[in-house]
Amino acid sequence: MTALDELGRHLADHLPADRLATDAGSTWAYGMDNSRVHHAPGLVVFPDSHAEVTEVMRAAARFRVPVTTRGRGTGTAGGSVPIDGGIVLVTDRMTRVIDFRPEDRLIVVEAGLINADLQRIVGEKGFFWPPDPTSNALCTIGGNLGCNAAGPHAVKYGTTRENVLGLRAVGGEGQTIKAGSQTTKGVVGHDLTRLLIGSEGTLGVITEATLKLTPLPETRRLLRAFYSEMHTASAAVSRVMAQPATPAAIEFIDGNALDLLRRNSRVDIPAAAGAMLMIEVDGDDTGIEALVKRIVTAARGGDPQVDIAVAETAEEQASLWAARKALSPTLRQVAPKKINEDVVVPVSRIPHLIETLDEIAARHRITIVSFGHAGNGNIHVNLLVNPDDPTEMVAAETALTEVFDAVLALDGTLSGEHGIGYVKRDFVAREIPAESLALMQGIKRVFDPLGILNPHKKLPDPPASNASR
Amino acid sequence: MTALDELGRHLADHLPADRLATDAGSTWAYGMDNSRVHHAPGLVVFPDSHAEVTEVMRAAARFRVPVTTRGRGTGTAGGSVPIDGGIVLVTDRMTRVIDFRPEDRLIVVEAGLINADLQRIVGEKGFFWPPDPTSNALCTIGGNLGCNAAGPHAVKYGTTRENVLGLRAVGGEGQTIKAGSQTTKGVVGHDLTRLLIGSEGTLGVITEATLKLTPLPETRRLLRAFYSEMHTASAAVSRVMAQPATPAAIEFIDGNALDLLRRNSRVDIPAAAGAMLMIEVDGDDTGIEALVKRIVTAARGGDPQVDIAVAETAEEQASLWAARKALSPTLRQVAPKKINEDVVVPVSRIPHLIETLDEIAARHRITIVSFGHAGNGNIHVNLLVNPDDPTEMVAAETALTEVFDAVLALDGTLSGEHGIGYVKRDFVAREIPAESLALMQGIKRVFDPLGILNPHKKLPDPPASNASR
Repeated sequence: MTALDELGRHLADHLPADRLATDAGSTWAYGMDNSRVHHAPGLVVFPDSHAEVTEVMRAAARFRVPVTTRGRGTGTAGGSVPIDGGIVLVTDRMTRVIDFRPEDRLIVVEAGLINADLQRIVGEKGFFWPPDPTSNALCTIGGNLGCNAAGPHAVKYGTTRENVLGLRAVGGEGQTIKAGSQTTKGVVGHDLTRLLIGSEGTLGVITEATLKLTPLPETRRLLRAFYSEMHTASAAVSRVMAQPATPAAIEFIDGNALDLLRRNSRVDIPAAAGAMLMIEVDGDDTGIEALVKRIVTAARGGDPQVDIAVAETAEEQASLWAARKALSPTLRQVAPKKINEDVVVPVSRIPHLIETLDEIAARHRITIVSFGHAGNGNIHVNLLVNPDDPTEMVAAETALTEVFDAVLALDGTLSGEHGIGYVKRDFVAREIPAESLALMQGIKRVFDPLGILNPHKKLPDPPASNASR
Repeated sequence: MTALDELGRHLADHLPADRLATDAGSTWAYGMDNSRVHHAPGLVVFPDSHAEVTEVMRAAARFRVPVTTRGRGTGTAGGSVPIDGGIVLVTDRMTRVIDFRPEDRLIVVEAGLINADLQRIVGEKGFFWPPDPTSNALCTIGGNLGCNAAGPHAVKYGTTRENVLGLRAVGGEGQTIKAGSQTTKGVVGHDLTRLLIGSEGTLGVITEATLKLTPLPETRRLLRAFYSEMHTASAAVSRVMAQPATPAAIEFIDGNALDLLRRNSRVDIPAAAGAMLMIEVDGDDTGIEALVKRIVTAARGGDPQVDIAVAETAEEQASLWAARKALSPTLRQVAPKKINEDVVVPVSRIPHLIETLDEIAARHRITIVSFGHAGNGNIHVNLLVNPDDPTEMVAAETALTEVFDAVLALDGTLSGEHGIGYVKRDFVAREIPAESLALMQGIKRVFDPLGILNPHKKLPDPPASNASR
């Protein structure tokens, strides 16, 4: 009997029957995420609580079987793909609200709760939880925590790590981890909360989270500004970020993306536009007009040529968002298997990056389309390639290496929120020097001495250790 | 020749002469901080750069001599006291600004820069760095980082950990640690930045920090509100925190502290006042009045008895702050050797805590005076005792234990920003369960396998390891 068989028997004895799936027909779908990677799980468990996760992890440790935790599999980096098989631990059944205290601006939830469901629950009391990735109708809080996801509003409200007070998790030997507290200040012990956030299930299985809530703004406005080219748009971003009225979001779309929309969508883009910004402003009814005026002034920078529209009603705002929303479907249609990166550079260096991207694209004869969260310098770089064309794929691979080199030369980072998972692991050592990497691998061994927590993810495998199994 | 002598010789050979002090007359003062603990250093080093800190740490590792890092020694928990002697590493000479880029809302500085000097430098370009402890005229950025210091404005702008992008540090074997990046998003590798912040020099010597800057608000108002007792004041705090206009600070002073001011200062406190809130509001000129109105409404909660004053000019604001500012000198005068704690509870539980404190004080016949940062639930609890009176000190010790029990029963934490250092170490295991503590001690071993980085601080010594030296 294999270790997996023994483990399956053990779990069947210790968990209710509906917590396990072992037949390949049921488990196959849990071997993939939104990357193009698939590995078949050995078995899939659906624990119902922190206690059951503890049970699973203790058993996995006993039989030395790897555990890959999974929310809804919306990740794009293969983070929830079980590379070595073993257990896929699905958090779908852990969707409870354990405590909700608007008076303390906090909610305690289980990790499997869907982001949009959370927003609905806290919205009824006038709050929101700032992280809202595009996939928020599907993705779980646990997934948001695992990737330190952010979305467009991070420019004003921070990423996941700035919006969590504490966590409960299970480590690689089945031990319970209590991290953080229910308060916004606290310095007792080391910061395990931020260490677990963004660790992509490699240090522990997050089961419960105490989330810091923010009161919903009273009202919103949306600005759309067209610029002749990326440099002037980027200078506008820096001007907007240098004055006190921080917008709730600053999204940008580069000239290549606007061209794509002109050719492939019904969105009306002026011929002279070489870059577009979408700026969301939120605040209270009495102050919002003054805020908008300031941000329009900063976005215009004294140039009467900049074409700025301000949407007040929800309908007008939806209509302005149309161009941005049309982008992803258009990209999918034009290049269904595009390579999508998620780099970040300091805000003032965005135009430099975009220039370099154009130069790389021209040299390798591939199309690169960029858009993203300009206020954070977070650029989604899309290489529109056909993975069935080996010549184009070789060119893309070289191009990608050059993109990463450019990002690092600009003091940027290789992933803002999509995570490293499995597919970007080979690039980590370019950004993180060996001595720091060794510390991270040491931390991994502390939390997971047997190397069973989501192996082959987040960090390069160390030369010879349990973690490389 | 002792290891310390050998180390002294080695450093004298490798560093310029003015970097070392070895005679007891010069080194004695570096053995204490703002706690009442003193241990004599073996030698004091004043490195001038990251490279020199690396030199010191490599030598310390080679000769197995402990290293205690120190800014200006304003800490109250003995964190910079060299318990085992050895090296005190002073960051006083590392005060350079390495890079200042307002367009990216960031500044890179060395760890020895004084907080107030930083504020002046970035203020000239219209920015501030939100952490501003009361000691900001003296304390260093490195000290702020080591303790995750916050100050009154954390309620709106977060603590140190929310205002740092990246760090450079030196680990316990002299290795260079690169943590974080120059961007507000980033998920490559594990979060060493937040791990080092608040670690009180036990995981590494922070040499350089990339700080996230915030634009200065255009204008400020100050509200002072008197309530009949703490419950109504605390309910007001919850109401203020439940609406979208988050104040820049909410400070509170309890009834005992008001009594103390009535008896010992010339500040005018109404006879009916049993609690006071000071609320700072910041924003832009056009929106500020609307913000103030909202916050006054929330602070009043429909009760016409609440006595609220709003100060507009800087002079009026200074006059309103008088009561709060008079408190620390008055306390020092009345009880020069008071025990000062720094607990935190969820905001809605402040009145429950204050009630319990009153009950504990009455039972042990000691006076407890509380004030603090209400918006974060961070309460400075002062036990007005005479340490030369053994009976009172025994009572105080029991009372303190009961205070901590009460805080933990309310899901609070034992220190908000003062840190654990040496003097609060025995209480850590009350808050942090053994399994989580073991992980923290494991992390410590990864960063500092020889146990030479600020030994006997932050965490209890593990049963038998190098770290307990």
